[in-house]
Amino acid sequence: MPELRQNFFTKEWVIIATERAKRPEDLVVQHEAKEVAPFVPTCPFCPGNESQTPPELLRLPASKSSSWQVRLVPNRFAALARELEPSRTIHRSRRTINGFGVHDVIVETPDHSQFMALMSDTQVGDVLRIYKTRYNELSLDPRIAQLTIFKNHGHAAGTSLEHPHSQLVATPVISHQVRERLQQALSHYDEYGDCIFCQMVQEELEEQTRIVMVTPHFAVMELFASATPFSTYIYPLRHMASFGDISGAEINDLAHVMRTVLAKLHVGLKNPDFNYTIRTAPSECFGAKYFHWYVSIIPRLTRMAGFELGSGMFINTVLPEAAAAFLREVKVENATGAGA
Amino acid sequence: MPELRQNFFTKEWVIIATERAKRPEDLVVQHEAKEVAPFVPTCPFCPGNESQTPPELLRLPASKSSSWQVRLVPNRFAALARELEPSRTIHRSRRTINGFGVHDVIVETPDHSQFMALMSDTQVGDVLRIYKTRYNELSLDPRIAQLTIFKNHGHAAGTSLEHPHSQLVATPVISHQVRERLQQALSHYDEYGDCIFCQMVQEELEEQTRIVMVTPHFAVMELFASATPFSTYIYPLRHMASFGDISGAEINDLAHVMRTVLAKLHVGLKNPDFNYTIRTAPSECFGAKYFHWYVSIIPRLTRMAGFELGSGMFINTVLPEAAAAFLREVKVENATGAGA
Repeated sequence: MPELRQNFFTKEWVIIATERAKRPEDLVVQHEAKEVAPFVPTCPFCPGNESQTPPELLRLPASKSSSWQVRLVPNRFAALARELEPSRTIHRSRRTINGFGVHDVIVETPDHSQFMALMSDTQVGDVLRIYKTRYNELSLDPRIAQLTIFKNHGHAAGTSLEHPHSQLVATPVISHQVRERLQQALSHYDEYGDCIFCQMVQEELEEQTRIVMVTPHFAVMELFASATPFSTYIYPLRHMASFGDISGAEINDLAHVMRTVLAKLHVGLKNPDFNYTIRTAPSECFGAKYFHWYVSIIPRLTRMAGFELGSGMFINTVLPEAAAAFLREVKVENATGAGA
Repeated sequence: MPELRQNFFTKEWVIIATERAKRPEDLVVQHEAKEVAPFVPTCPFCPGNESQTPPELLRLPASKSSSWQVRLVPNRFAALARELEPSRTIHRSRRTINGFGVHDVIVETPDHSQFMALMSDTQVGDVLRIYKTRYNELSLDPRIAQLTIFKNHGHAAGTSLEHPHSQLVATPVISHQVRERLQQALSHYDEYGDCIFCQMVQEELEEQTRIVMVTPHFAVMELFASATPFSTYIYPLRHMASFGDISGAEINDLAHVMRTVLAKLHVGLKNPDFNYTIRTAPSECFGAKYFHWYVSIIPRLTRMAGFELGSGMFINTVLPEAAAAFLREVKVENATGAGA
């Protein structure tokens, strides 16, 4: 029997269509096998081509003379312009802000052919450390209201460049979706005196059925009302509103967790296209007791059709409990932690 | 210079990335040229195969003996089950409703190879009349809270069956997205004593730059804060909360408008994949002065990537004013109406 489930946090209803249930194997998208070279002379992100990007803002290791492992540079085709002062115009029904914003690219490795799923924990940790440094730096800019750090992997996830990279976009407004979710979380806190995420994570840890893995600092799970197959969420066990508050030990643990989850998806679903986002409180809500940052990893195995676009409701053909069981079972190297 | 624009109704911000601006030609997705037969023996929607669908609920012309032009049948692979009594379960953070709902299919023509863009106004009118009949019938069912009528055209829009068809899904809950937008519209009404849509349509008619066409009963436009290229909206000029209140004359006009807009997209963007939805008030809001039904047509020319998924904000690379000018210029047969 199909079932409608409501996301506790976003309040969105999802149809879990068990009648149309699919096996994970049915969702695997076959990619053409192709040989990718570790160095591509025309790639602006490959070593030696550093002059093809706008001047570098950060690198690891930090020493300018050494060869780099991770670089952060302005996006050459930025969607927003960083040199403006944001100004708002209101004319009848039309609200406009000039296109101030920051759009950076994080080159995750010098190796063009690498996948994050197959990197070492240390390499992934370097990417996360660059995220944190830049995130905390930009959070201080009073022109910036919201920071989104994300990765597009593969064509269906919207990437155009093959070389492993992620992006950061800073906007002068809080998006309506984020604002609305902050308000949901605040209402919950006002009513129950509890962080809605802390409560949910605690319940999932007791329930176990949707847990993928648990480490000293993080819990990884499928959501009860998961909107799309194998969408996987990583929550810090310690209450923190902002990603910028992550400690050194937590970054090392998160690197291990992200690498392991991406490896499980890579092996289990044969290198699926995916997006991940670090969903964190806007700087005006730093320290909030009602919001909790997390990472969402969304494999792009299905397409939004008219029903999803036209109602905001999703139909998920994979039971979240089955997806979690499947991911628990996928064996990858060095995946320590309960259930891994 | 890029610009952020806020949708007056949904409050969502969109980045209009003029620096990355694309010409309409750049967005055309080349389809493989393939010959499609008007009759496919294995297609469950082709004439003669009526027994392959669950028993028919409606047809036009209505006479059982004549051959049909439009049929409405239950979806054989329904996402929801129509024979249940909806019941809600709340257990800690988990909210569930058993999978009650209705999932119908509307077969729009006996001709397997037809496109709605190339049908006659009368044929499109028959499809709309079936929508209205079924919509008003299901609106009386107290188990149903929300009705979504939509069409998926082409692979990128999520269709799996080639034979022209649309779908109707009835759910026992109002989706969070729809609920939230109703509240936005209600707040506007409470503050200004005006339907937010009536106001916006009036302003757009004065402004003219985003108008695609105007007929006696409808205005067609690109939105000021259009989230994706060539998303086109059809608003009735008369205030009506519910699609079910459309008159006979309005249906004939809407048929002409939809056919013309789809033909403009078909010719101008070379048969793009698209979704359309009739966005109408839930039955508990019938007669509302604050909500106004409309049709959204979303060509699927771009993909949602990590930024859109992770922030709810979209980046649109086509200026809505340029999209409207382009569509105004595309000549199609019999497109009467100002600006057509």
